[in-house]
Amino acid sequence: MDKKNTAVLLIHCPDRAGILAAVTEFINQHRGNILYLDQYVNREESVFFMRVEWDLEYFQIPKEKIEDYFQTLLALRYEMSFRLYFSDTKPRMALFVSKMSHCIYDLLARYASGEWNVEIPLIISNHPDMEPVAKRFGIEFRLFSITNENKAEQEAKEIELLKKYRITFCVLARYMQVLSPDFIKHYPDRIINIHHSFLPAFAGSKPYHAAYARGVKIIGATSHYVTGDLDAGPIIEQDVARISHKDSIDELIKKGRDLEKIVLSRAVEKHINRKILAYKNRTVVFQ
Amino acid sequence: MDKKNTAVLLIHCPDRAGILAAVTEFINQHRGNILYLDQYVNREESVFFMRVEWDLEYFQIPKEKIEDYFQTLLALRYEMSFRLYFSDTKPRMALFVSKMSHCIYDLLARYASGEWNVEIPLIISNHPDMEPVAKRFGIEFRLFSITNENKAEQEAKEIELLKKYRITFCVLARYMQVLSPDFIKHYPDRIINIHHSFLPAFAGSKPYHAAYARGVKIIGATSHYVTGDLDAGPIIEQDVARISHKDSIDELIKKGRDLEKIVLSRAVEKHINRKILAYKNRTVVFQ
Amino acid sequence: MDKKNTAVLLIHCPDRAGILAAVTEFINQHRGNILYLDQYVNREESVFFMRVEWDLEYFQIPKEKIEDYFQTLLALRYEMSFRLYFSDTKPRMALFVSKMSHCIYDLLARYASGEWNVEIPLIISNHPDMEPVAKRFGIEFRLFSITNENKAEQEAKEIELLKKYRITFCVLARYMQVLSPDFIKHYPDRIINIHHSFLPAFAGSKPYHAAYARGVKIIGATSHYVTGDLDAGPIIEQDVARISHKDSIDELIKKGRDLEKIVLSRAVEKHINRKILAYKNRTVVFQ
Amino acid sequence: MDKKNTAVLLIHCPDRAGILAAVTEFINQHRGNILYLDQYVNREESVFFMRVEWDLEYFQIPKEKIEDYFQTLLALRYEMSFRLYFSDTKPRMALFVSKMSHCIYDLLARYASGEWNVEIPLIISNHPDMEPVAKRFGIEFRLFSITNENKAEQEAKEIELLKKYRITFCVLARYMQVLSPDFIKHYPDRIINIHHSFLPAFAGSKPYHAAYARGVKIIGATSHYVTGDLDAGPIIEQDVARISHKDSIDELIKKGRDLEKIVLSRAVEKHINRKILAYKNRTVVFQ
Repeated sequence: MDKKNTAVLLIHCPDRAGILAAVTEFINQHRGNILYLDQYVNREESVFFMRVEWDLEYFQIPKEKIEDYFQTLLALRYEMSFRLYFSDTKPRMALFVSKMSHCIYDLLARYASGEWNVEIPLIISNHPDMEPVAKRFGIEFRLFSITNENKAEQEAKEIELLKKYRITFCVLARYMQVLSPDFIKHYPDRIINIHHSFLPAFAGSKPYHAAYARGVKIIGATSHYVTGDLDAGPIIEQDVARISHKDSIDELIKKGRDLEKIVLSRAVEKHINRKILAYKNRTVVFQ
Repeated sequence: MDKKNTAVLLIHCPDRAGILAAVTEFINQHRGNILYLDQYVNREESVFFMRVEWDLEYFQIPKEKIEDYFQTLLALRYEMSFRLYFSDTKPRMALFVSKMSHCIYDLLARYASGEWNVEIPLIISNHPDMEPVAKRFGIEFRLFSITNENKAEQEAKEIELLKKYRITFCVLARYMQVLSPDFIKHYPDRIINIHHSFLPAFAGSKPYHAAYARGVKIIGATSHYVTGDLDAGPIIEQDVARISHKDSIDELIKKGRDLEKIVLSRAVEKHINRKILAYKNRTVVFQ
Repeated sequence: MDKKNTAVLLIHCPDRAGILAAVTEFINQHRGNILYLDQYVNREESVFFMRVEWDLEYFQIPKEKIEDYFQTLLALRYEMSFRLYFSDTKPRMALFVSKMSHCIYDLLARYASGEWNVEIPLIISNHPDMEPVAKRFGIEFRLFSITNENKAEQEAKEIELLKKYRITFCVLARYMQVLSPDFIKHYPDRIINIHHSFLPAFAGSKPYHAAYARGVKIIGATSHYVTGDLDAGPIIEQDVARISHKDSIDELIKKGRDLEKIVLSRAVEKHINRKILAYKNRTVVFQ
Repeated sequence: MDKKNTAVLLIHCPDRAGILAAVTEFINQHRGNILYLDQYVNREESVFFMRVEWDLEYFQIPKEKIEDYFQTLLALRYEMSFRLYFSDTKPRMALFVSKMSHCIYDLLARYASGEWNVEIPLIISNHPDMEPVAKRFGIEFRLFSITNENKAEQEAKEIELLKKYRITFCVLARYMQVLSPDFIKHYPDRIINIHHSFLPAFAGSKPYHAAYARGVKIIGATSHYVTGDLDAGPIIEQDVARISHKDSIDELIKKGRDLEKIVLSRAVEKHINRKILAYKNRTVVFQ
């Protein structure tokens, strides 16, 4: 991809007149060139959301001081919550898989082709099946079998490994294990899951069987951040495919695979590009 | 539409070799010209489903005897359930409405343009709001206010009216009243409802509010046959529209209207053309 | 709809730092409350586009002076082209129809339900077929038969009538007559047409026949502003529907009708809400 | 996949009463168990099309004699063109690639996971870029640089290689070279291409640039059989994605990649499963 040297700010705060002008002024007057700007006001709750990305080439505030200046000059005044990212700091992703290959192939093909500004140093699995795929792409594969008895212990080891590899977010690519609330706390709004239904319909296990039994005419897939409530975290992306009475459960599973991999990859890409802001169990997805 | 003189058979029976050949032979040997044929075998349950439509022009069995002959020669032998329809017998539809006009306009515009082989002699409502629309199209409008107290009584009068008008099926075009199980029994698999969500997600009232609260990225609409279980009858047709975090509840309601009217009209058209076979809370929708 | 008293500005100009801050400041400092703001920079051509809508309730510049002030204080400095609209000035639409009713019904149903902030005082046609529909909705219907010989003369009369009715934009709802370049000059970027194909495929006449002959698997509809080049004006909205080899031309025509009416109505709504900016044969469609 | 031992018949012939009954009888009376049957009559041209798949386990005619018997007993009588396939004879596919990896990864991921009943023994390219990907999946990669001067010679070598590997069909996975009519003659209706536009719009080179210039609101991808006319062969599958004025050409290219790979893979799957019958530059795609 391009070698831009940019900064990204994700902001939310109580809505008030002048925020947009104040933020753009802050960037402009210090010679930052704004590349993308998207803002949105939730009128029901009176909350202002914004993503702005600007070129750092001629920006006069040194990178390491931007956060401090912004905090002092703007965030305090407008009661902002904000996050600051730099394009030259690549997010580091760990992939969690089980036995199915369609999502992992789709993610790794994009990674291998250099499509994404990300590092994927580590694949974790509770089954050995995907080890050959990991090898194909030259990525470290670590097996952690999980039972009711050893779960806490194994998760602790996983967390340790994630720290060691400086992982900034996790992607569950049809990982068929529920993570414990304790695990999730280490990566709030930083674990992306793909659920193979059009949530909130058919949460839980065997959604294609449930969809078949209910006789729906459209199936879906949903990517979301993982929270302590199963399949109930903030939704990032969804898509659907039309089916008919002729489709058996096996055919639903097959049609669903293409949905799952595309919907998961779209969510991962948006996360990598810092386009998602999770707020009160919903997501703002900037353009 | 065209003035074809055709017969339609909808069949289901235990799957067995030779059914398809037997049915097509029955039509061919009596000089019926098959226009459309669609069949489907549910392998899990071993059930055979079929819709066949043929031209009656040179068919040698008189119309009034077809049912009897088919019953004797084929249905008994193959344990078939079947329904026989003739294109020159138009279905007669009653429209149930409340306060919203988008679905009723869409249905009546198609009716008025002669797009459908149907009669719509009667509109029933629990509110007076749609009376001007009914008048615009010259259709009898009857008001039945419903309260908890008078519901049974009012429904009895409605049923009487439906009989008087020889209504063969009912369409609930955003009719905001739950029909009693007793009412429904008079029209099994012959009351079509539009629900303003992607069922089974967001059944019940205020689905757009629920969709907003859950933060979904796609909304939907579902047409289905009404059964005693609220929003749980056999699904006929569904469709969806993409939304974003920027859409307020009002915008969901507005985007949903176009979905609702199209999804309802598609279901009504399929019902009119005898393309739907409800079986065990699912529908087979023939082509 | 709501009775907001708002102003809308549509702006484009050469891209430069500080435009966004300058415009929002202009509104904020005079106590305008910004309701919606969407901006976009075309980097290839270095052009800045913006739509901003604000509440006039406490705005300190009188309505009749806003244009002048904005011109002097901002437009000159930034070389802006801009248009200013007020929500209490309803656009006035003339409907052009021929023989088909699906689009006209869809538009008039929305109009009659009060869904749109528009007046529709006039329907013009080259055939008498739609007169009953116009009457149903109580709208003036005027017939202008067009031949090669009388075209210039008839169009002149139409223009006169449009002026008399103070029409601000025209909608061709499957109007099967090509307007002359002379006519179009009176309403630049203010005549909306619906073409029954996925443009630029199948421009010109009989697109469903052409789509069938080519064996496409998806059909479409396209709404666009009318220019002197047939079916080549700026595209506003498109949508598609899946078809199969089983669909005859008649079935394509039928499936296409639902596409056409929805795609046309979406374009008209965006035009009414001043969300479209045509620029060099493309449209910027604000949110 | 399943290890079914089945036969597939693809048939087309002049439409006549009794064909369907005759074919199903032929299978039934020799104890073939019909698994899938789809038929379609093109009424305009009076042509009957059919695909039938049946279990060979108890079928009484030996595999090697089925073609002969069917020819004698049915095909002659009904003037049928037909093809007979057996599920235990895997089609053998050659992949043609250039520099882009998204389609090749998607195809090989499905192949490697055993999703398809196919062999892929050979990858041919006019550039060395994809060799590492071929190696990753352990597939023979052969480089044939093409210039205007050496084209005929190189293609002759390619054909020789395809024969040696007993290739039954070719897939052009964003292969950026036009095949000569001579090459195409060796594989009539057996070369599948993916074109990165919604054909017939934007045939030829740089379709995303053309789509951007025209200002369309939806982009597409089209898979088709290759014929002597560039981008004009029988269409197998198409799909589309919504875009906006905000999408630069680079973003169209990126969004298009996901379309291209899915649309190509769907076409390849249908070809592998013998579900496509090309007829007069259109395809019948059976279910």
